[in-house]
Amino acid sequence: MLIVMKPNAAAGDIDAVIKVIEAIGFRAHAMPGATRTAIGITGNEGPVDGRRFENLPGVAEVIRVTKPYKLITLDLRPDKTVVRVGDATIGDSGLAIIAGPCAIESRDQAFAVAKAVKQSGTRFFRACVWKPRTSPYTFQGLGEKAWEIITAIREQFGLKVVTEAVDESHVDLIEKYGDVIQIGARNMQNFSLLKRAGRSKLPVLLKRGMAATLEEWLLAAEYIMAEGNYNVILCERGVRTFAQHTRNTLDLASVPAIRRISHLPVIVDPSHGTGTAYMVTPLARAGVAVGADGLMIEVHNQPELALSDSAQALTLSEYAQLIEEVRAIRDVTAPLPAMARKKASS
Amino acid sequence: MLIVMKPNAAAGDIDAVIKVIEAIGFRAHAMPGATRTAIGITGNEGPVDGRRFENLPGVAEVIRVTKPYKLITLDLRPDKTVVRVGDATIGDSGLAIIAGPCAIESRDQAFAVAKAVKQSGTRFFRACVWKPRTSPYTFQGLGEKAWEIITAIREQFGLKVVTEAVDESHVDLIEKYGDVIQIGARNMQNFSLLKRAGRSKLPVLLKRGMAATLEEWLLAAEYIMAEGNYNVILCERGVRTFAQHTRNTLDLASVPAIRRISHLPVIVDPSHGTGTAYMVTPLARAGVAVGADGLMIEVHNQPELALSDSAQALTLSEYAQLIEEVRAIRDVTAPLPAMARKKASS
Amino acid sequence: MLIVMKPNAAAGDIDAVIKVIEAIGFRAHAMPGATRTAIGITGNEGPVDGRRFENLPGVAEVIRVTKPYKLITLDLRPDKTVVRVGDATIGDSGLAIIAGPCAIESRDQAFAVAKAVKQSGTRFFRACVWKPRTSPYTFQGLGEKAWEIITAIREQFGLKVVTEAVDESHVDLIEKYGDVIQIGARNMQNFSLLKRAGRSKLPVLLKRGMAATLEEWLLAAEYIMAEGNYNVILCERGVRTFAQHTRNTLDLASVPAIRRISHLPVIVDPSHGTGTAYMVTPLARAGVAVGADGLMIEVHNQPELALSDSAQALTLSEYAQLIEEVRAIRDVTAPLPAMARKKASS
Amino acid sequence: MLIVMKPNAAAGDIDAVIKVIEAIGFRAHAMPGATRTAIGITGNEGPVDGRRFENLPGVAEVIRVTKPYKLITLDLRPDKTVVRVGDATIGDSGLAIIAGPCAIESRDQAFAVAKAVKQSGTRFFRACVWKPRTSPYTFQGLGEKAWEIITAIREQFGLKVVTEAVDESHVDLIEKYGDVIQIGARNMQNFSLLKRAGRSKLPVLLKRGMAATLEEWLLAAEYIMAEGNYNVILCERGVRTFAQHTRNTLDLASVPAIRRISHLPVIVDPSHGTGTAYMVTPLARAGVAVGADGLMIEVHNQPELALSDSAQALTLSEYAQLIEEVRAIRDVTAPLPAMARKKASS
Repeated sequence: MLIVMKPNAAAGDIDAVIKVIEAIGFRAHAMPGATRTAIGITGNEGPVDGRRFENLPGVAEVIRVTKPYKLITLDLRPDKTVVRVGDATIGDSGLAIIAGPCAIESRDQAFAVAKAVKQSGTRFFRACVWKPRTSPYTFQGLGEKAWEIITAIREQFGLKVVTEAVDESHVDLIEKYGDVIQIGARNMQNFSLLKRAGRSKLPVLLKRGMAATLEEWLLAAEYIMAEGNYNVILCERGVRTFAQHTRNTLDLASVPAIRRISHLPVIVDPSHGTGTAYMVTPLARAGVAVGADGLMIEVHNQPELALSDSAQALTLSEYAQLIEEVRAIRDVTAPLPAMARKKASS
Repeated sequence: MLIVMKPNAAAGDIDAVIKVIEAIGFRAHAMPGATRTAIGITGNEGPVDGRRFENLPGVAEVIRVTKPYKLITLDLRPDKTVVRVGDATIGDSGLAIIAGPCAIESRDQAFAVAKAVKQSGTRFFRACVWKPRTSPYTFQGLGEKAWEIITAIREQFGLKVVTEAVDESHVDLIEKYGDVIQIGARNMQNFSLLKRAGRSKLPVLLKRGMAATLEEWLLAAEYIMAEGNYNVILCERGVRTFAQHTRNTLDLASVPAIRRISHLPVIVDPSHGTGTAYMVTPLARAGVAVGADGLMIEVHNQPELALSDSAQALTLSEYAQLIEEVRAIRDVTAPLPAMARKKASS
Repeated sequence: MLIVMKPNAAAGDIDAVIKVIEAIGFRAHAMPGATRTAIGITGNEGPVDGRRFENLPGVAEVIRVTKPYKLITLDLRPDKTVVRVGDATIGDSGLAIIAGPCAIESRDQAFAVAKAVKQSGTRFFRACVWKPRTSPYTFQGLGEKAWEIITAIREQFGLKVVTEAVDESHVDLIEKYGDVIQIGARNMQNFSLLKRAGRSKLPVLLKRGMAATLEEWLLAAEYIMAEGNYNVILCERGVRTFAQHTRNTLDLASVPAIRRISHLPVIVDPSHGTGTAYMVTPLARAGVAVGADGLMIEVHNQPELALSDSAQALTLSEYAQLIEEVRAIRDVTAPLPAMARKKASS
Repeated sequence: MLIVMKPNAAAGDIDAVIKVIEAIGFRAHAMPGATRTAIGITGNEGPVDGRRFENLPGVAEVIRVTKPYKLITLDLRPDKTVVRVGDATIGDSGLAIIAGPCAIESRDQAFAVAKAVKQSGTRFFRACVWKPRTSPYTFQGLGEKAWEIITAIREQFGLKVVTEAVDESHVDLIEKYGDVIQIGARNMQNFSLLKRAGRSKLPVLLKRGMAATLEEWLLAAEYIMAEGNYNVILCERGVRTFAQHTRNTLDLASVPAIRRISHLPVIVDPSHGTGTAYMVTPLARAGVAVGADGLMIEVHNQPELALSDSAQALTLSEYAQLIEEVRAIRDVTAPLPAMARKKASS
C-alpha cells in the first residue's frame, strides 16, 4: 500500500495520515520526493482497505501494492494443482472434457447424450438438475427427480457427473449423488454458497461471473479454499460486453493470465461463451490452443427440442467432430503450456 | 397473460376468474387499480389459451404479454406502486431517503449516525449486519450481534431499518428484527434468495446487478412478485463498464426507462454508484433531478476509520448539506416525473 | 513511476532494472522492503512508458504515479476557463445551451428551429454541415451548400454556430463561416484533426469518444492545447456499454471527475447520450443538477421527418419545456459547483 | 440491392445492367464469382425499384438487401476474397503473417527485425512511420525519414510493407513507397480517411475500432469498397471492456461471425489484443485455431528499449518460436475453416 500526497500537502497533512495508519495498527514509512511525499504501509497480514485514506486532506492517490489473494497463488504452491475425481483428472497433461446437455430433461435424452459422451472417450458428464433462469416463467429443471436418471448414468457409463448448485441445499444432494459441484456465473459472488462448497469434500468447478474481473474471480476461489477445499477448477465462460454477435465475449486471455498467477486448473466453456452452435467448435479449438486444461461443451440429441439453451447445443455428430479436432490441436500444443509457465515465472 | 376486468366488475366476477386460473394449474395475481382490476397469470411454461376467459362475466380484455415480464408492468397496474413501511412511504410525492453506515460496526458508531439521520427528517436507516465482501479476508460485518444495536435504534429514533440479506437464513432474522429486506447487486440473480424474499411480508429493495440489463433486473423483480410479494423497490447502483474514474458507472437513464415500463418505485444509490465521497452529492442531485423516488446514501461519523467502503461514506455535515440540496431540487421537479409518465404512455 | 519486484527477485534482477532506468536517462531509487524491493523513477519531465519494464526478470508490477497531462490541470491553472464566443460564454455562472437540429436539411427547417432556439434565450446554434454516418449509404449532410443557410441564421438571429469538423478541410470552412469547431466522438483520437483544431483561433468543443477513459479524453484536449488553443469545451455524450435501453450510457460522474482535475468547462449532451426523445429532458435536468456548464440538445421542427437521428430530436414545444425545467434547477444549484470544487481541491 | 446474373450471362448482358444502374444515377459494382457474377448497387439513399432489372437479359435474380451492408457480403460474392500483394497473398490456404516493430525507430533496429522476419518465411513487414499516440508528449514516429529505411528493406529482403495512415496525406506517401495501407482502430470511423483509402489501388488492412460492433466494423469496410477498392483485410485487435488484465479483450468469436457473413479475409493481432508479451504466443495460437487467415505480430530486437508499446513486443527468439507453434496448429486445422463455412451457409 502506498499513499501519494499532493505536491502542496502540508507537513500536518502528512502527520495526520501517519497517525491514522498507526491508529489501525500498521507501520508508516514516509518517503519524501522532489515534488511530493509518498507514504508506504507495512505490517499488514491481510490487505488494508486503502480507500479510507483517499479523502484525507492532502492525499492525491492511494495505490495498492500487495495482491489480496494468497491460497490460489503460485507463490504459495509452485506446482499446478491436479484435481482428481476417482480415476479421472483435470489439470494434468490430458485434456479434460465435460460434456452433456444443458439440463436433464428425460431418461431418453440423458441416456442418448451420455452414450455419445462415453463413446468419445470423455470422462465427465454435465448434468444440471436445477436451472438458474433469468425469467421465473421458463423451464427450471427437473429438480430432484433428475437424480434417479443421473445415478443410472453413473452406474452404466462410469461417467463423473458435474452438477450446478443453485443454493446450499443443492450441495447436500450433489454430495450424496454427484461428483463435482458447479458454481455458476450468477452465483460467483454468492459468498454463502462459496463457503458451503468450501466445506465439501467434492471438487468445485467455479465459473467466472458475467462482469467479474480476474481478481474478483480468483478471490471467489479463495473463499472456497479458505474453508479447506483446495480442489477448485476455474471455468472461463465469457463476460458481458457491448458486443452483440455473441451471447458473451469469451475472454481467452484469462487462461494465460491465470497461469501466471495461480496453480489452479482452468477450463473453457465455448457453449455459454458464444451462445451459438456454429461458433462452439472454432472457439473450442481456440480454447485448447490457448492452453486450457479442458472444455465444457453442451450436447443434445435433439438440440431443436431442448428445453433450455437450445441455440448453443451441438448435435451428437458435431460433438464427435469437435472432439477429433481439439485432440489434434492438443497433440501439437500439449508441451506448450508448461513452457509458457516457465517463461512467465522467470 | 393478463386479464383486464371491466371497471364495474363485481368482486364475485374477479373471484370466478381467479378460480378458473387456479383450476387449470396456474397462479392468479389480482392487482386492483383506481378504476379497474387486472389479473396476472403466472406458472405457465407454455402458452395459455386465453380465449377461455374472454366470455367470463366482468372480463373486459385478455392481453397476451409478449415481453417476458408481467407483474411489474404498467399494463397490469397503471398506477404507481407506493410501498408503505409503517407510516413511512416510498413511491409517493415525497422523496424517500435511506441513509446510514455501510455496516453496523459498534453501538457508538450506529447511534451517532442514526441521530444525524433522524435529525435530517429521513425515515429509513441503512443498517447492514452481514457484508458480502469480495475478499474472504476483509471485515464481514458484526453478524447477529448487530441486531441488538438495531433494535435499540428502531425504538429510540423510530427509524425503519433496511438490511441486506446474503442468504435465506438472513431473511428469517430480518423478518424478526428489521423492516425492509435488501437484495444486493451480487445476489440479483440468486434465484433461491429472490423466491424466499418473495414469500416474505416485508418490502424488498432490489439492487441492480453489476452487469444486469434492464430486462434481467425487471425479471429479478418478477421472481419476487411471482411469489406474491408486490412491495418491491428497485435501486440503481451503477453498472460495470470500462470507465475507471468511478467504482461503477451510474446509469441514471434507467430511471425514465423503468418509469415507462413499470409501476414499481425506483431509487438511486450514488454512494456505490460512484464509490468516492466527493462525487456522492453531485450524483445524488442528478438522481433526484432525473426523477427517482428516493436515494440510498452511506454516512459515517468517522469515514476515515470505517471498516468497509470508507472512501464513499459522507461525513455527518456533508450528509446534512446533501439533504438540503436534494430537497431544493425536489421542490422544483416534484411535479415533473408524473408529467413525464403521461407523455411516455401517450 | 514505481517498479515492484517479485519477493524472490535476485539482486542481479534489481541491478538490471536500475541499469535500464539509467540507460534511458532517469534516476532510479531502490527501496528494499521486508519481503520485496520497489524501485522509484524520478527525473522524468514527460511520462515514461513504464510497460518496457514489465517483462524484465524479477519484475512483479509497474505502477504509474505521475499523471500524463499538464495543460488541462488545475495544478497549472487553478481558475476555471471561461470560453468566450463574441459576447456569449461557456464556463461562467450562466448555463450555456447549444441547441439545433442534428444536421441542416433545408432553409425552412433550419430557420424554424433557429427561431425557437433564439426565443428560448439560448445563444448557441448546433448546425452540422457534414454528418459522420456509420453507413456509407445514409444521408451525409448538405455539405458546403449548408453554409449559405448558416450565414443567414447568424445574421438574422445573432446565434453562435457550432459545427462538427470531420476532416481538416472542414476546419478551414468553419473558420471562414462558423463560430465553434466541434470534434465528434468518432474523431476524438483523430490526432491530425486535433492538431489542426489546436492551430485554430476558434474555440473547440471536444466530445468524449465512445470508449474513451477520462484520461484519454483529457489527453485529446491536451493535444489541442499543446498547439496553443486553450479554448476547449469538453462534452460528455455517453459511452458504449452492455446496456441496450439507451444508445449510449451517459456517464454523468465524469462531470465532477473533470472538475476535480481540470479547469476546462464541461457540458452534457443528453440527446446522443440517450438516443431517445422521451429521455432527453430527464437527463438534461440531471446534467444541470450534477454541475455541468451547459447542455447540447437536438431540436427539430418535425422530428418524424428528420434525415438523421430522428428518434432523439425534441419537438419545439418539448424543447421550450426543457429550457424552463433546467433553468429552474440551475437557479437552485448555481452556487453548488463552485463549492464542490472548493471541497475537491482541499 | 443486388443483381445476380445467370451462370451463362454474356459479358454484354453484364455491361447492359451496369449502364442502366449508372443511367439512373447510382454506382455499379460487378463482382465476378466462380459460377456467376453479382452486381451490387450503391449510392441509393432511398429504396431502388428493383423490378426494372428483372427482365433485362442475363439477369437471374434481384435481391433486396435488408442488412445495411452489401459489398462485403457472401450474398454478393460467395467465394472468399484473396488479397494479392505482388506474389504474396492473404486469404488463401496459407497463413499470412505480418510481423515487425511497432514503429521504425532506426536503421539498425529495422534491419535487425526485418532479417528475422524474412528468415521465418514471413512475407509481410509491419513498419509504422507515424504513430497515433494517446498523449501528445510521447514518441510520435520518425515520420517521412522512415521511408528511406523502408525502401531499403523492401529492396534487400523482398518483404511487403504494411504502414498505418493517420491522415489522407499519409495515404499519398504509402502509395508511393509502401504496399498495404493500414487503418488503425482509432480511425475506424474516420470516414474521410476511409474514402481516401477506397480510392487507392493498394490493399487496405482495416483494424476493428476499440468499441466497434461487428456491424459498424463491416460498414467501415463497406465505406472503402463503395469507392471501388475491394481489397480489404479485416483485423481483430481486441475491444475495450471492463477487464483489466489485458490492454484490450481479444474477441476471437468475431472470426467465425465474419466468416458467416463476409467474403473478406480476417486476421488477428494478439500484440495489441493483449498488450503483454507473455500472452502474445498463446493468443496467436488461439487466433490460428479459431480459423483466422493470418496474424499481425509485434517484434523488436530489444523490446525493453522500444520507444512505443515495449511491453507487448516479442524478442526475435520468442517470435521464431511463435511461428513454429502457429504453423503446427495451422497444419492440423487448415481444412477446417472451409468446412465451418459450409456448415454455416447450410
